[in-house]
Parts: sequence; structure tokens; C-alpha cells
Amino acid sequence: MFLALAGGVGGAKLARGLVRVLPPEELLVVVNTGDDFEHLGLHISPDLDTVMYTIAECHNPETGWGQAGETWQFMDALGKLGGETWFQLGDRDLATHVERTRRLGTGEPLSCITADFCERLGIDHAIVPASDQPVRTWVDTDVGKLSFQDYFVREKAKPKVVKVTFDCIDDARPHQKFLDAIESHALQGIIVCPSNPFLSVMPILSVPGVRAALEKRRAPFVAVSPIVGGKALKGPAADILRSFDIPVSPAGVAEVYGDLLDGLVIDSVDADLAPSIQDMGPSVHVADTVMKSLEDSVSLALTARSFAESVVPRNSYSSAQ
Amino acid sequence: MFLALAGGVGGAKLARGLVRVLPPEELLVVVNTGDDFEHLGLHISPDLDTVMYTIAECHNPETGWGQAGETWQFMDALGKLGGETWFQLGDRDLATHVERTRRLGTGEPLSCITADFCERLGIDHAIVPASDQPVRTWVDTDVGKLSFQDYFVREKAKPKVVKVTFDCIDDARPHQKFLDAIESHALQGIIVCPSNPFLSVMPILSVPGVRAALEKRRAPFVAVSPIVGGKALKGPAADILRSFDIPVSPAGVAEVYGDLLDGLVIDSVDADLAPSIQDMGPSVHVADTVMKSLEDSVSLALTARSFAESVVPRNSYSSAQ
Repeated sequence: MFLALAGGVGGAKLARGLVRVLPPEELLVVVNTGDDFEHLGLHISPDLDTVMYTIAECHNPETGWGQAGETWQFMDALGKLGGETWFQLGDRDLATHVERTRRLGTGEPLSCITADFCERLGIDHAIVPASDQPVRTWVDTDVGKLSFQDYFVREKAKPKVVKVTFDCIDDARPHQKFLDAIESHALQGIIVCPSNPFLSVMPILSVPGVRAALEKRRAPFVAVSPIVGGKALKGPAADILRSFDIPVSPAGVAEVYGDLLDGLVIDSVDADLAPSIQDMGPSVHVADTVMKSLEDSVSLALTARSFAESVVPRNSYSSAQ
Repeated sequence: MFLALAGGVGGAKLARGLVRVLPPEELLVVVNTGDDFEHLGLHISPDLDTVMYTIAECHNPETGWGQAGETWQFMDALGKLGGETWFQLGDRDLATHVERTRRLGTGEPLSCITADFCERLGIDHAIVPASDQPVRTWVDTDVGKLSFQDYFVREKAKPKVVKVTFDCIDDARPHQKFLDAIESHALQGIIVCPSNPFLSVMPILSVPGVRAALEKRRAPFVAVSPIVGGKALKGPAADILRSFDIPVSPAGVAEVYGDLLDGLVIDSVDADLAPSIQDMGPSVHVADTVMKSLEDSVSLALTARSFAESVVPRNSYSSAQ
């Protein structure tokens, strides 16, 4: 089986391909919850929703969030009542937030609600939040400390990020399926989707217990670079690498994942970087990584799966076996 | 000045006329909150919303609730997620519930939120809930005790009502503007809109302190009969009168209001009942009371105002002055 770690749009696109090339019992998709927040009294899990909607094929490809055929009547009426309109919530999308908030209020864990929503949307594969306990990403920036959505949506990711922290993470536990998958003898590969390493993947890896489990992994940890040709395909990953003085390239991505990384899929346009990345330790596979269609997602999923199957973990634990 | 007591659709229609014939400083609209409930984790105040939307001319005349031009994307998506769909919430209407729930959660009173919403919707007149404390109507029926919305919406008002009670009402206080208006020397009339006497008006009159204040009123208490030609214009008022063995006629309405009633506006089709109602005590005015248009509402508002100005309170306090 395979484990996929995903953030928002980029992660969702690869996950969309993975569910087409792996049967339900051979894939677990673990999703970032660091972007989750409370807004208008509603619990919102942007990455979970993007992954869920995309896999269910009811996503909105124009926005990257919300559902296909979204309308904006709620937002329009909310604006007229003086409500906050900086975070756009479509009329269909809103049903997810309202119903999830209601169910969370009864004490039901986020993962159970997610599983039920997925089933109702026709998804056969398992999608779990990295943790059922709240993890909240905050960024220290040149204009002060901001919650993730204040930085990302309200401030349009313009402030310069100097530090990323995950509030409440000390009290979080990895979802049991996530931990079980890492520790499973059947695990063939951990595939890190092309999501923002700092904002989408690090919150997953930082849940207490995940690193320790990964250090003992038997399966390789391979990532698909979200940086292509010196740019992030989406979002502020490039700006953040730059502000941390890390190369805005797949080599920079390899640097961020460090010793964890056993293999990296880089885009064809970055093929010349392969030798220098391999010198850093991980294996490298060159492929077309930009996903513009379902076919692209399926193709990259096949590539990532094959690559993961071929890579040997670098960690001492597995090499000691 | 005048005080108008209103429930949902019928009350809203007359209130819509009253705001056209009385300047803002000469009218206070007090609205029933007995129908309020929590649904999907949201606080919903159906009567307040109907009155507010109707006065703001953004009401939905087809449904009697929700806003003009409603769409149902939220409900459709909610159904797909397995959420409860027996209570229809339009996409625009939902903004009111979400934003009000959020603000109530910060401790803001219902009346302050209502006042702000009204201002933003362009309403110059004051609309207040009968109480800022929760009052919840329950009905004992032949199929058991039901909360108001379970009875009214989920069960389509089909169960036979044997008793109406108002939960939490002992802890409720009348809104101060409501109490001040009743006690004001400037008050010229209390106009009870053609709303359900048991389900819309009684919750208002039953808030502790209201009856005592009304007993000392200087202004007449006049009602517009919601029963016309032996039928309720809308809702279950006729069925409830019948199950309480009260005549389904304006005379029955007079019986329900009892000694409080100084005057009753009845419809032309019920003109022959005027003498027998007058024998019961209240003055009677005959008019066309069915409001199908804004013009009808304005006309009935003028009628109710003039009638209230002409009626003398029957209570001992005022006659002792």
C-alpha cells in the first residue's frame, strides 16, 4: 500500500490520479489541517475539502476551492448584512462547513465526519486529516504574526514570511490510520504530493510521533517537487523558500525535506538539477509534473508509484534490517 | 406612537403597511420569538426574519420566508452530505442565520443584531424581538409533545394541538423598548397584527411583565382578525381554535384575547358577526383585511391606525384616570 501526504490544490491533483491507479485498500491520503480555521463561527478545513471535492470530481477547477457550479448568493447577502467577506464561501461549499461544524459540536471527530462525507460523495478511498486534534499554522512575517488564512487569503500571501509555527501541535496526535500506515509492513511508499513544503507538508510531519515513526520507516519517502522552473505552480512556496535563503528549485525542496527524502520527482524543465540533487542523497526521477488534466494526474500518479517502488529508503533503520 | 405585535407572514404584511403610514419615531414593531430554534447549529428566528425582509422589501412572496430570488444550492449540497433538509434554508437567507449565530456567540443580544441588520437593509423603523432571552414554543399534540418547528414544518402542522407552552419564558424579560412603549403616555394604540393568536401573539403577551403592563395601558389594544370567513388566511390557527373548542371566527379570536381586547378589525365577509362580538365587549370595525399587495397592506394599516385612535381602552386603570 501507499501513503500520500497532501495539502491543497497540488496535493489534490496528484491524489486524484492516485485514486485512479490504486485500489482503495492500497492507498491512504493524509491531508494537512494546519490551514483549518474558525470563520463566521464555522469550522473550515480548506485542504480536506479541496482533496475531497477533487477526488469526488465535484471540485471547482477555476478557483481551486469550493465546488463545481458554485454560486455566491450567501456571500452577497452576508455583505449586505455587514458580515466578513474576505474569505469567499460558495453556496454549495457552505453546506460542508455548516454540517461539519454541527457534527464537530456533538463531539464527533473530524476524521469520522470526513469519512462519512467522502462516502456520501462516492469516494471509496480513505482520506484522513493528519490529526483529529486542532493544528493551526501561524506565520511570523514582516508585518507581524498572522494566522495562516489572514496571511494567505486576507493579505494575499504578500507579507514576507520569516518563521512558520504550528499552534496546539504539542497536543495533537497523528490519526491512527496514518501512524499504522507508516508502521505497516505492507507500506510500499510514502508519496509527498506537490504541495507547499512549509505550509502544507510540514504541519503533517510535525504532528508529534510522525517523525519518530518515519525514522523507522521501511518504505521510501518520495516527494514530487512543487517547484518547477524556479517557480511555485501555485501559492507562496517560492517566496517562502527565497525568504529562508533556500534555492527556489527542486534542490531547495530536497533541502527542506532533508534526511527524510529518499527520492524526488522533478519536472523535465529542471532535469539539469538531477545530478546535484542526487549528490545531496535522494534518488531523482525526471518527469512531466504539471497537472492540467485528469490524464496528467493519472500519468504522474503512475510515475510516482513506480518511482516509489524503485527507491530504497536511506534511513538507518531500514538499512539495518 | 403605535406598537405593533407581529408574528410571521400576516404580521409582516401589516407591519409593511404600518411603516408606510407612520414615521419611524411613531412605530415600534415587536416580533414573536417563540418560533426561534437552533438548527444545523444555527440560531434561526423565522418571524423576525420574515418581518425584517418584508419591511425591507427583500422578502420572498412565494414562500413567505427567505429572501427574494432565493436559490437552494446549500440545501442541495447539504442533502448530498446527509444533512437534515426538512427545514429549507435559502442561500441568501442563510447569511442572516450564520452571521446572527456568530454574533450571538460573542454575547451580543438578539435585539442589537436585529437593529443592525435592519439598518443595513435600509429599514428606518424599530423592530425588536419581544425578548432578548430565549422563549421556545412547544405544543402538546395527539402524537406527543413537539417543538414548534417539529410541529409546524417537519409535521406540516398536521398533529392536533391540545396545549401550547412557552419554554424558558419564566426567565425571559420583555425588551425594554417594548415595555417602555406600553407604559408610554405617547402610546396611541397597540395593534395586534393578523397573526396566529396562540402561536405568534401569545408568546409575546406571555413574557413576564407584559400582561401587568398591558393591564395598566392607557392606549387601546386592537387586533386584526387572522380568521376570515371561517378560515385562517395562513397556517394552523383555524385547526387550533377548533381543537380548543373555540369558534373558528373573529368571535373566537376575540374570545382568545379576552379582556385585553378593546377593538377588533374583522373582514367584510364576517360583517354579520360584528354585533355578537361587540356584545362580548370590544369595539368592532369592518374592513377588507386580506392583504395581497403593498396597497392592501397600506390600506389596512391606515384602517387599523384610525380604528385604534377611535377606540377607548376597556381596562379599569385607564378609565380610572
